[in-house]
Amino acid sequence: MRNFDQFTITEAVLERIANAPDPRVRDISAALVRHLHDFIREVRPTQEEWARGIAFLTDTGHMCSDTRQEFILLSDTLGVSMLVDAITHDHQREVTESTVLGPFYVEGPPEVPCGGRISGALSGQPMFVSGSVSRPDGTPLADAIVDVWHSDEDGYYDVQHPGDQPGRHAGLVARARLRTDAAGRFHFWSIKPAAYPIPHDGPVGRMLEAQGRHPWRPAHVHFMIEAPGFERLVTHVFAAGDAYLDSDAVFGVKESLIRDFVEHPAGAAPDGRTVDRDWCHLNYDFRLSPVSETASRAA
Amino acid sequence: MRNFDQFTITEAVLERIANAPDPRVRDISAALVRHLHDFIREVRPTQEEWARGIAFLTDTGHMCSDTRQEFILLSDTLGVSMLVDAITHDHQREVTESTVLGPFYVEGPPEVPCGGRISGALSGQPMFVSGSVSRPDGTPLADAIVDVWHSDEDGYYDVQHPGDQPGRHAGLVARARLRTDAAGRFHFWSIKPAAYPIPHDGPVGRMLEAQGRHPWRPAHVHFMIEAPGFERLVTHVFAAGDAYLDSDAVFGVKESLIRDFVEHPAGAAPDGRTVDRDWCHLNYDFRLSPVSETASRAA
Ligand SMILES: [Cu+2]
Ligand SMILES: [Fe+3]
Ligand SMILES: [Fe+3]
Repeated sequence: MRNFDQFTITEAVLERIANAPDPRVRDISAALVRHLHDFIREVRPTQEEWARGIAFLTDTGHMCSDTRQEFILLSDTLGVSMLVDAITHDHQREVTESTVLGPFYVEGPPEVPCGGRISGALSGQPMFVSGSVSRPDGTPLADAIVDVWHSDEDGYYDVQHPGDQPGRHAGLVARARLRTDAAGRFHFWSIKPAAYPIPHDGPVGRMLEAQGRHPWRPAHVHFMIEAPGFERLVTHVFAAGDAYLDSDAVFGVKESLIRDFVEHPAGAAPDGRTVDRDWCHLNYDFRLSPVSETASRAA
Repeated sequence: MRNFDQFTITEAVLERIANAPDPRVRDISAALVRHLHDFIREVRPTQEEWARGIAFLTDTGHMCSDTRQEFILLSDTLGVSMLVDAITHDHQREVTESTVLGPFYVEGPPEVPCGGRISGALSGQPMFVSGSVSRPDGTPLADAIVDVWHSDEDGYYDVQHPGDQPGRHAGLVARARLRTDAAGRFHFWSIKPAAYPIPHDGPVGRMLEAQGRHPWRPAHVHFMIEAPGFERLVTHVFAAGDAYLDSDAVFGVKESLIRDFVEHPAGAAPDGRTVDRDWCHLNYDFRLSPVSETASRAA
């Protein structure tokens, strides 16, 4: 095979990958080649534009570290993550909706007993979070694993360590792993998270700027919930009234995931504790999708 | 904008980028989003497959260094580089065809006078390379810049430094910048290059293996030729008879770029030098495309 033009080159590549041992690899590779080549034929890049594309991908890769996942940010901001989410979770009315994982999840977060405080030395408005985990019919799920993580009052996650300023948190904070009690319930204390810009000091930030977009996400708390026999739920709960609910930089907002972070004056909290300043209360009742049901749905 | 499904998410992203200040950025971004989303809808990745895609791109970025450009390898092996080449160089019969740049070009190669030897301490069959640079009508172009680079007899480029073995080359070798003389001609000595596998110890190598492909390229000498008022020519000359001419891993072979590397017994060479062993002779006469012609064609 020689002397390809801008149409025969696509056939040549498809022919070359036709013998991939794994049919799934073959199908994904073939679809990638067709759509990628169609994209190139549509935009007709100059050699210089092509080189800038290569440089963009290279910069994006070099930005990735243990605490920064720039390709997830790229996927998120191009709507790909939410598209995959939509494809893998056909909406089921009776279970909690999912949204993006985002780049800030850390494997193996600190285990915290119910009622614990996860905000360490962070300042901010106290936030009491309560909730439950149940089957679609409302039957409680005891001993479900509930991972939570959220930003601080300035919109930073612990792993972002902004400037290692004195007095800032060191290590993991505003994240934890809890378990539901016999009634399928959990609660913990933290501080209220803020809306924040996704990290935009890298290639994805430059892309957003070139596209005339802001990098902001509405305030939210991340949840990842697991129980044996149920699909793992990856979701957020968003703060009602946030200015960015309709322009989330990563397209992650769903109506069913918005809740009031209800304001309360200083005084007694639901767990009997007395709070010496104003605080807020977020409650969310999650319903998980049984594995078998989802599997048969997919078949 | 909230609550997207797998179709409305695409519209939402397109709407978000509609105000990109630069219309070219807007058009490229929009085409990228449409084709990328179509690709995702077609293959319907699981969350695990999506995560593997993110990991593949991250690994590819981390593999990139000063001497290794894994994203160019990816573009080359997916046929994208030759597609861009085809789009940016509508074939003009009267000028030399182009092909991929490849990942081994080094800016600012050593300047070598005509007749010089560029193979340093490399062993291998002596190769005499001669050629000319002219306008489409054959009028010679004096003082054109001719950059050349090629592999050694084991198929490695200088910048790959295989294992830093004792006795191997250090620094730049088998690459040079020459200039054409008053008659538009150039010649130099080197050693005959070998067919070689593209670097396949990284993510792209693993992709080729998963796709059931070999990583080999037929033996070739790279040329990049520049003269004021002419389009820069990036091309190779391939060795006739090579086993990989019809299965080049990067789809770069064009019939018009294949030449015999003519074998000669020990004895007198065209430049008067006496060679004490068998040697080969490669000649290629290049014709450049005037800038104005190309520009008016594109308009
Ligand atoms: Cu497409
Ligand atoms: Fe977040
Ligand atoms: Fe090469």
